[in-house]
Amino acid sequence: MTDNRLSKRAQGGFSSAVRDLMSRAVHADVLSLAGGRPAVESFPVDRIRAALDDTAAELGAAALQYCMTEGVDSLRAVVTERMTAAIEREIPYGELLITSGSQQGLDLAARVLVDPGDTVLIDDPAYLGALLSLRPYEPHLVGIPLDGDGLRTDIVEDHLRRGMRPKLCYHNANFHNPTGSVTSTERRRHLAELAERYGFLVVEDDAYGELWFDAPPPPPIARYSPEVLHLGTSSKMLAPGLRVAWAVGPADVVGAMSTAKHGVDLQSGTLVQHAVARLMADTAWLDEHLTSIRRIYAERGRKLAAAMASQLPGVTVEAPKGGMYLWFAAGAGEPLVSSLPLLGAALDRGMAFVPGPEFAVDQPFDEWLRLSFATLPVEHFDEAAARLGQAVVDLRARN
Amino acid sequence: MTDNRLSKRAQGGFSSAVRDLMSRAVHADVLSLAGGRPAVESFPVDRIRAALDDTAAELGAAALQYCMTEGVDSLRAVVTERMTAAIEREIPYGELLITSGSQQGLDLAARVLVDPGDTVLIDDPAYLGALLSLRPYEPHLVGIPLDGDGLRTDIVEDHLRRGMRPKLCYHNANFHNPTGSVTSTERRRHLAELAERYGFLVVEDDAYGELWFDAPPPPPIARYSPEVLHLGTSSKMLAPGLRVAWAVGPADVVGAMSTAKHGVDLQSGTLVQHAVARLMADTAWLDEHLTSIRRIYAERGRKLAAAMASQLPGVTVEAPKGGMYLWFAAGAGEPLVSSLPLLGAALDRGMAFVPGPEFAVDQPFDEWLRLSFATLPVEHFDEAAARLGQAVVDLRARN
Repeated sequence: MTDNRLSKRAQGGFSSAVRDLMSRAVHADVLSLAGGRPAVESFPVDRIRAALDDTAAELGAAALQYCMTEGVDSLRAVVTERMTAAIEREIPYGELLITSGSQQGLDLAARVLVDPGDTVLIDDPAYLGALLSLRPYEPHLVGIPLDGDGLRTDIVEDHLRRGMRPKLCYHNANFHNPTGSVTSTERRRHLAELAERYGFLVVEDDAYGELWFDAPPPPPIARYSPEVLHLGTSSKMLAPGLRVAWAVGPADVVGAMSTAKHGVDLQSGTLVQHAVARLMADTAWLDEHLTSIRRIYAERGRKLAAAMASQLPGVTVEAPKGGMYLWFAAGAGEPLVSSLPLLGAALDRGMAFVPGPEFAVDQPFDEWLRLSFATLPVEHFDEAAARLGQAVVDLRARN
Repeated sequence: MTDNRLSKRAQGGFSSAVRDLMSRAVHADVLSLAGGRPAVESFPVDRIRAALDDTAAELGAAALQYCMTEGVDSLRAVVTERMTAAIEREIPYGELLITSGSQQGLDLAARVLVDPGDTVLIDDPAYLGALLSLRPYEPHLVGIPLDGDGLRTDIVEDHLRRGMRPKLCYHNANFHNPTGSVTSTERRRHLAELAERYGFLVVEDDAYGELWFDAPPPPPIARYSPEVLHLGTSSKMLAPGLRVAWAVGPADVVGAMSTAKHGVDLQSGTLVQHAVARLMADTAWLDEHLTSIRRIYAERGRKLAAAMASQLPGVTVEAPKGGMYLWFAAGAGEPLVSSLPLLGAALDRGMAFVPGPEFAVDQPFDEWLRLSFATLPVEHFDEAAARLGQAVVDLRARN
């Protein structure tokens, strides 16, 4: 068998750096702030267990049979209700598709929209999974910087005025992965307006919107235009291992995604969809649950930010407003320290993170890194921070 | 927004005929033998329910957390054991991937192997889902006929001798969908030998292998060569709504599929994988369960074949040897009746099936149709057969 039997699609563009890193970070006594796994103490295990069991008891074999590719009616109903309230308009049947995680929503959107060479605007830095799902479709990726008010929509407008015609703009507006930024209402309106004026689709990845600490984020971009594909998920509200998410957007795009999903995996799990519907339909419980998990994430975020600030003199570590991540230039100051060698030094000290360049589109982010405050037990935060601080010292001493 | 924003991939090649038909067949009092849903009475609902609950109780939050893209260790272990016995060789870690249904295995295989224009050999007639998963990758499909001994591997060899160099050969060797045929041991060996000699991959879709009636099918093609990607599933053994399946094959292909899966949906559901592992690990129970469902399917298959034979004089309806389908030329005899108009007449009489041309690659199968004996309650079989017989009479009277 020849060794080039794999298609161009398989050979092109996947980054394995994070996977390799994860495998190294799993071994030994490494305190890992690298992975983006939600806090296990936030999972309502008993409620999920009861919802699955009650669903199986009530529906019997029907809960285990094939269902429509579009998703089961019970889940579609609660998601429609929730999203109608969020975007303040009706959602016809053809504008909603249940997906296996919002990662699948991303892949299906890219699959039905992107031909090789098409321009795609994307956060810079960007969610790694978005880069992974887009790259096989060979887009021309153009990174759009973020600042304290989120996506620099003025730069998007500059590109459009100069004649750029993107197929879509991928944006993670709420507690952005990796930077934690929240895009302002004004910029959301601006992006929606640009999408309509210049004819491109906004893919709004809302993985973290419910994980706010002091104040909820602004309304979804989808409230300001129908030219938005909104990707929502139960992964952070309930638990990611269920793989239940949804996509709401224009009927032509969602219809094509549904047709594609039929060929890709027929449907998402039947029983888990019904169980998630049952949990989300109990809004009194869900509100209380969300309040409790916001408290968990807020405490984690503030503690890790404080620990890092105390161990990294001269480095600005902003307290997060929501989500799961800290993003800062650990290698700022003299001499500059690049985050790739810093990761090596940190692993030597028994600590892991994801280097900034992993998330880079056009900018380098060489001294930057992403820490997740969601996964590691809180009692290890101080030690992890101390190890990172030591790694910076080690590396500066070596140079 | 322009109406041609969809990619070539989204616009190309999907057949919606079956979906449209299904939606029409769902309404009113239609007795549908069209859909390929497994028999609900075969689902071990209580065992599945207990397995899910026990898993959640035992593993707690870990059962609901993200897992590795390759799948959870508990499931990987039982699948490895099972497949090692079936193919009689060791299966290293990198040669197994857990997928969301074997439909996903098919899509991932096509995704990592097929570039536009690549030649792909495929059963003719073929499983519709295989056509759906392949077509977006724009292969040159070449249909290989089947007969009473399964795939005509002599025709495969003819093509290869004349210089054809396929990337892969998709084959459903056990109780083939739609024809029900079983490929003989000799032809399995022959296909495996051709794959090695001419350098292509056999994609062996084994959805129905456990559903044998009198005798098990021959060993998997994967026993005769490592150049086989074997797709297995729990969908017919346990229940399809769980979406738990597996792919075993060469490390380069499976590795690329795993990388692709990371971008496509990160992973399959964590809890359902553990629950399926728990059920499959109880081999004493599983053997007994499989014996009982074989009895269910055998009774269904024989009853429907007998009902059809009695209502369709002059039509040869062979009793099935396993699986879920009958395949025959309902419109044979004078004058010939095409299955597409016959479907219209059958729906008028309140009965549905899938017309042969839906499964066609290169041959017409104009008078042929596929009936599923898995889904409809058995007590409706006689009436469904009578309606189909009437529809043939109606149509002949009209012509």
